[in-house]
Amino acid sequence: MDIVSPKGFLYSIAKAQIKYPDRYDIALIYSKKPAQIAGVFTTNQIKAAPVKICMKRIRSGIAQAVVLNSGNANACTGKKGIEDALKITDYLAEKLNINTHYIFPLSTGVIGMPMPVDRILNALNDLIKNLGNAQPMQVAEAIMTTDTFPKITFRQIQTPSPITILGICKGAGMISPNMATMLCTVLTDAKISSDLMKEALKDAVAQSFNSITVDGDMSTNDTVLMLANGESDIKIERKTALWKQFKSALSDLCSELSKMIVKDGEGATKFVTIIVKEAKTTQEARRVARAVANSLLVKTALYGNDPNWGRIIAAVGYSGVPVKEERIEIYINGICLFQKGLPTMKEEELKESLKQKEIEVLINLNSGKGQTKIFTTDLSEEYVRINSAYRT
Amino acid sequence: MDIVSPKGFLYSIAKAQIKYPDRYDIALIYSKKPAQIAGVFTTNQIKAAPVKICMKRIRSGIAQAVVLNSGNANACTGKKGIEDALKITDYLAEKLNINTHYIFPLSTGVIGMPMPVDRILNALNDLIKNLGNAQPMQVAEAIMTTDTFPKITFRQIQTPSPITILGICKGAGMISPNMATMLCTVLTDAKISSDLMKEALKDAVAQSFNSITVDGDMSTNDTVLMLANGESDIKIERKTALWKQFKSALSDLCSELSKMIVKDGEGATKFVTIIVKEAKTTQEARRVARAVANSLLVKTALYGNDPNWGRIIAAVGYSGVPVKEERIEIYINGICLFQKGLPTMKEEELKESLKQKEIEVLINLNSGKGQTKIFTTDLSEEYVRINSAYRT
Repeated sequence: MDIVSPKGFLYSIAKAQIKYPDRYDIALIYSKKPAQIAGVFTTNQIKAAPVKICMKRIRSGIAQAVVLNSGNANACTGKKGIEDALKITDYLAEKLNINTHYIFPLSTGVIGMPMPVDRILNALNDLIKNLGNAQPMQVAEAIMTTDTFPKITFRQIQTPSPITILGICKGAGMISPNMATMLCTVLTDAKISSDLMKEALKDAVAQSFNSITVDGDMSTNDTVLMLANGESDIKIERKTALWKQFKSALSDLCSELSKMIVKDGEGATKFVTIIVKEAKTTQEARRVARAVANSLLVKTALYGNDPNWGRIIAAVGYSGVPVKEERIEIYINGICLFQKGLPTMKEEELKESLKQKEIEVLINLNSGKGQTKIFTTDLSEEYVRINSAYRT
Repeated sequence: MDIVSPKGFLYSIAKAQIKYPDRYDIALIYSKKPAQIAGVFTTNQIKAAPVKICMKRIRSGIAQAVVLNSGNANACTGKKGIEDALKITDYLAEKLNINTHYIFPLSTGVIGMPMPVDRILNALNDLIKNLGNAQPMQVAEAIMTTDTFPKITFRQIQTPSPITILGICKGAGMISPNMATMLCTVLTDAKISSDLMKEALKDAVAQSFNSITVDGDMSTNDTVLMLANGESDIKIERKTALWKQFKSALSDLCSELSKMIVKDGEGATKFVTIIVKEAKTTQEARRVARAVANSLLVKTALYGNDPNWGRIIAAVGYSGVPVKEERIEIYINGICLFQKGLPTMKEEELKESLKQKEIEVLINLNSGKGQTKIFTTDLSEEYVRINSAYRT
C-alpha cells in the first residue's frame, strides 16, 4: 500500500552523525503554509528540552515545520539543551525564512548527552537543500531507535476534495500508559482550528497511545504533534457529520500506530490485549489492567506459554483496587480459568491456546460498569539483551 | 558457623510429593510449650488459604507448631483450600495432642492448584515420627522453591541464660516492598508477650522484608511469624536495656535474611542499594526509591554495566512525587552523574565501577528530610528464563 501524504507538506532527511556515522538520523517536515497545531506531551516531570520548547510554542496554535532527530533525546541537558534546540530551530527559521516559533523540535535517543550541535547545523543545510525529495516513509525510518520497522499509516475521508490524515511515529521500549519514548507526528490537509483539533487528538490519544504499555517505563520525550494546513480546502466544524468522520478516522489512525508500537515492543514475541470489565469505575479498571500488564511474572509466563493464571490474580490483588476474590473471573483466549473463587482446572486446554501470537486476557470483576482495554507484550530474554546493551 | 536453635523447639521434615516425587517439601516446627506468637502478612487482597487461617488464629496470641510446605501455595483454591489446610492442622493436632488453633500452616509454590491432601496427610505421620531428628537448616531447605540456597541465621543476646533468636525464610522472586512470596519463621526462647513481640517485629519487618524488591510483584502468601516460648526464662519488658537489645537483634536478623533474599533474586547478578535522601517525606522517598528499583530499564542497564543514569532520572520523574529537575542529584557508587540540572559527563569513570557486584544508587532530591534505603537486584535474561518456565 502506497502511503499518501496530505497536500502541501514537504519532507526531507539527512545524516547528522548524531550517534552513528552513517545513517539518516534527522528529518524535516515542512508545511508550505502555516498550519494549525495541537499536541499531547509526556506526563513525566522530567521533560526533555525539545518537549519544553514545544509546550511553549504550541500556545500560539501555529506551526510550519517539525524537525525530528534520533540518537539523542536532548533530555537532562540543562540550559545548554534548551540553547542547542533553539540554535537548531533558529538556523532553520533563518534559512526557511519563517518564524522560529513555528518550528517544533522532536528528539529521541539517549538521555543526558549534549547534542552534537555543529554536526546537526551542518546537516540542516542538507535538509533544506533536499526539501521535497524525501517520502514520509523515509522520515519514519530516520526517527527509529530500537524500532525494528518504521511506523506509518494514513486515512482518507472522501469529500469533494479528499482529506488525508498521515501519522508517522516511533517507539518500541519505555512504553507505558501516558506514553513513553514515543514520538508521533500527525499531518492533515483538513481545515480545522487548533482548539477543535486538540479535542479530537486528546480523545484519540487516550484510546491509543495512552492505552499501551511495554515495560511500565515512561519517557522524558513523549510527544504527539498534529498539524493541519487546510490545503484540502475542506473545513471541519463541530457537530457536523464530517467532524464525526474526522474524529473516527483520527482515532483509528492513532490506534493502528499504537498497536504497531506494541507489536514492535522490544523483544516481544506476543501481542497481548488486557480487558478489564465490570470494575466499579473506568479508573479502577485501568489500574487493574495496568498492574496485570506490567507484572513481570505475568509477562514472562505468557512468553513461556505457561498457563500460570495465578500470577494474573496476584497482580489484580496488589493493584490497589478493592476486589472480592469470589467475584473475580479470569479468562485467557476465552477459556475460563477462575470463577466463583475456584480454579476451573482447564490448564491443559489453555496450554495449546497460549501458543498463539495474539493473547487476550479478560478480567471480570463483577462489581460495576467500569471497563478498559490495554495492549501490551510478553517479556523475553531478548528484551533484557536489548536494554542491557542499548548504549554500550 | 553452626546454627544455634533457641531452646525448646523441635524440627522435622518429610517428603509429601507435593510437586516433585523425591524431595523434602514439608516441615514441622514444634515448641514443647505453647508459645507467644506475632505475625505480619501480605497486603495483597488475594490471600492464600493458609494466610487466612493464620490471620484468624494469631488473634489468640498463642502457637505451638508451624507446618510449612513448598510446591503448592494453596492460593485461589476457594473453600476447598481452607478445608484442605484445616484437615492438615486438625490431623497434626490430633496426633500431637494439642489445640488445632495453635498450629499455623504456611505454604509456598504454585497458585490455583488444589493441595494433594492425601499425600500430605501421609507425610504428616513421617513428620511426627521424626520430630526432633531434623536440624533448622533442613527446614530452610524444605521450603525452598526457586531459591538457590537456604536462608537461615540466628542472633544471641548474652544474659545469664542466653536468649537465642533464629530466623528461617525463603524467597527469591515475586519480591516487592510490602513483602512477596516470602515465608519467614522467627523462633526465640525469650519470655515476651505477643503484643510486645508484635511491636518489635513490625519495626524489624519495615526495615527489612518491606524494604526489598526483586520484580515489583507481591504475592498472595507472604507471611512472617514469630514464636517465643520463654524457655530461656529471661523475661523481656518494655523500656529496659534488654528490650532495646532484643529489638536491635531482631532487626539485625531480619535485615540479614532480607538481604539473602535479594542476593538470591531470580537471575540476579548484582546487589543494588537504592538510597533516596532529602525528599519532602519518608513516604515520598519510598515512592521514588520504588519507582527506580522496579524500573526494568534501570535494572537491565545495571545488568549490562551500562552507565545509563538517564533511566534513573526518568523513573524519578514518573514516580508521582513532585520533583524539581535542577535540584536532583544522582550518584552511582559515589560518582556524581547529574547535578544542578546538568550531566557531569563522568560516565567513563562509572563504567569501570559498574563492574562491581554491589551497586549503590543515591538520589538526593534536596527538598526536605525524608529518606529511605531499599535493596534490589539487576534484571538478567536468566530472570526471564526462570519465570517463563517456572511450572512447565
